[in-house]
Amino acid sequence: MKCRVCGAQANIRLPQYNSALCAGDFIAFFEKRVSGTITKYGLLSEQDRALVAVSGGKDSLSLWHLLDRLGFSADGIYIDLGIKEYSHISLVKTRQMADRLHRRLYSFSFSEAFSKGVKELARMMKRPPCSLCGTIKRYVMNRACTDYGYSVLATGHNLDDEASALLGNMLHWKEEYLWKKGVVLEAERGLAKKVKPFFLCSEKEAAAYALLNNIDYIYDECPYSLGAKTLLYKSLLNRVEDVSPATKIAFLKGYLKRAKAEGSRGQEQEEKGSCSVCGYPSYGEQCNFCRLMTKFGSGPAVRFDVYVPSEP
Amino acid sequence: MKCRVCGAQANIRLPQYNSALCAGDFIAFFEKRVSGTITKYGLLSEQDRALVAVSGGKDSLSLWHLLDRLGFSADGIYIDLGIKEYSHISLVKTRQMADRLHRRLYSFSFSEAFSKGVKELARMMKRPPCSLCGTIKRYVMNRACTDYGYSVLATGHNLDDEASALLGNMLHWKEEYLWKKGVVLEAERGLAKKVKPFFLCSEKEAAAYALLNNIDYIYDECPYSLGAKTLLYKSLLNRVEDVSPATKIAFLKGYLKRAKAEGSRGQEQEEKGSCSVCGYPSYGEQCNFCRLMTKFGSGPAVRFDVYVPSEP
Repeated sequence: MKCRVCGAQANIRLPQYNSALCAGDFIAFFEKRVSGTITKYGLLSEQDRALVAVSGGKDSLSLWHLLDRLGFSADGIYIDLGIKEYSHISLVKTRQMADRLHRRLYSFSFSEAFSKGVKELARMMKRPPCSLCGTIKRYVMNRACTDYGYSVLATGHNLDDEASALLGNMLHWKEEYLWKKGVVLEAERGLAKKVKPFFLCSEKEAAAYALLNNIDYIYDECPYSLGAKTLLYKSLLNRVEDVSPATKIAFLKGYLKRAKAEGSRGQEQEEKGSCSVCGYPSYGEQCNFCRLMTKFGSGPAVRFDVYVPSEP
Repeated sequence: MKCRVCGAQANIRLPQYNSALCAGDFIAFFEKRVSGTITKYGLLSEQDRALVAVSGGKDSLSLWHLLDRLGFSADGIYIDLGIKEYSHISLVKTRQMADRLHRRLYSFSFSEAFSKGVKELARMMKRPPCSLCGTIKRYVMNRACTDYGYSVLATGHNLDDEASALLGNMLHWKEEYLWKKGVVLEAERGLAKKVKPFFLCSEKEAAAYALLNNIDYIYDECPYSLGAKTLLYKSLLNRVEDVSPATKIAFLKGYLKRAKAEGSRGQEQEEKGSCSVCGYPSYGEQCNFCRLMTKFGSGPAVRFDVYVPSEP
């Protein structure tokens, strides 16, 4: 198997592009591809100050590294979920990347804010941990953007994440979520612009990029995220991909085309009022996050730790 | 495992309904369910003369048997594809059912009409056999309805057939087919009404109904229909169903709701002209079938054999 670009021994097979590349050419290819997505969908401009949502996993650390390589000024935001060993290791990996890039890392400690971990709080509220975690992450990451003046929040969601979530929404026709996926959600009413530069890049590509760039990431998934369904949908789509390479990309691209015609989040935000505590859009008198804080929070404010690496 | 109705030993597990039934109660349940679909979607009325598309397989023979049991007057139409052993066995099974129900069976012989089998003709035309077969079946079955005065064509498509085809259309966003599936297609411009009474019944249910009614059907699938993708999609959906029973039904019901808003075949038929040979709707000067007959047909007319069983 030869590299399609230079003819040397190839390291990475890319059946979805009917191609194979050596390490160096794969890195160049991947960076060009993400850069292409950024340009095509208008995700980031030179004027933007971006905050990358980092978990310590391959996707988010690769994204942070890649945005830096492309010359975008991007700091990191990390949510410490208080899941003992898992949270400890992921914070270490995240800090390593902050040091490597000489970039700021904001962190929000779940345990500090609520005096308990996500699992305990979820149990008290009779909500699945992933659902509670989602509410809190969305709020806190957005809050970090507005508090510290970042114009864009970038997340590491990849092709496999998006395709499997989309498949789940379709099988159950969750119309309320179905048409809301996208590479970009524009800023609106106190909500920062959100972008997914890896939307069209597979999990395997993101992992290869991390490995080839010596990015030390946490291999384990969050222990609460191992929902049978998400993993099942990913494995089913991988089986289709084996038989018909590039199906996942076609699935998402076709979806994007269709979703465009179905409208964006604009409508939904217009229907919402404002939270009486923080002022963000909310259906109720208080938004979900402020209700949580009022009931379970250990203090009135959302507090971030800021880790500033030493200059190079 | 006890029968949910009578408490006797259950023979059939139905996880999608969170139920299990004995043989007798399963038959009653299945017939009631199909009868409910017929009423709910307006598939058949007592005034209708129905023609059942029979292949000799479990779905179509069960359907013919069941429509008879429900008191609908239904004859059969069989297409002999000229696939040696397979076609021979399926015709035998089909005739057995015609004898059992004392119903007419119309048959159209592919080899007689074209002096060759479907595989050979497909090779000459450089088309996949399934695509050619589809064109011919659709035309000929409809033609039998209009030639012999049947108001409705009923096919044995089941939940698994429909869900897997839908999944394939969605993964590749085949918008031209995507919103055209349905339990019923109303009659229009020379096209008979088409109905799928098993639309919400699984393959396993149809097989159980056949077995419990001593219906002797051909077990083999058509040798050309074993496309990797259709089987793959079916097996993937079965894996989802194992984890989340009733997903397939939810998938199709949600789809039907959505498709209703997307319009029906009416629009498309309006855009078509009429075939200069047979008068049916056609985009070209001749419809696909008449072009085939003009080029490869051994005679000018579509000819049916009519098998009339002896009176009981």
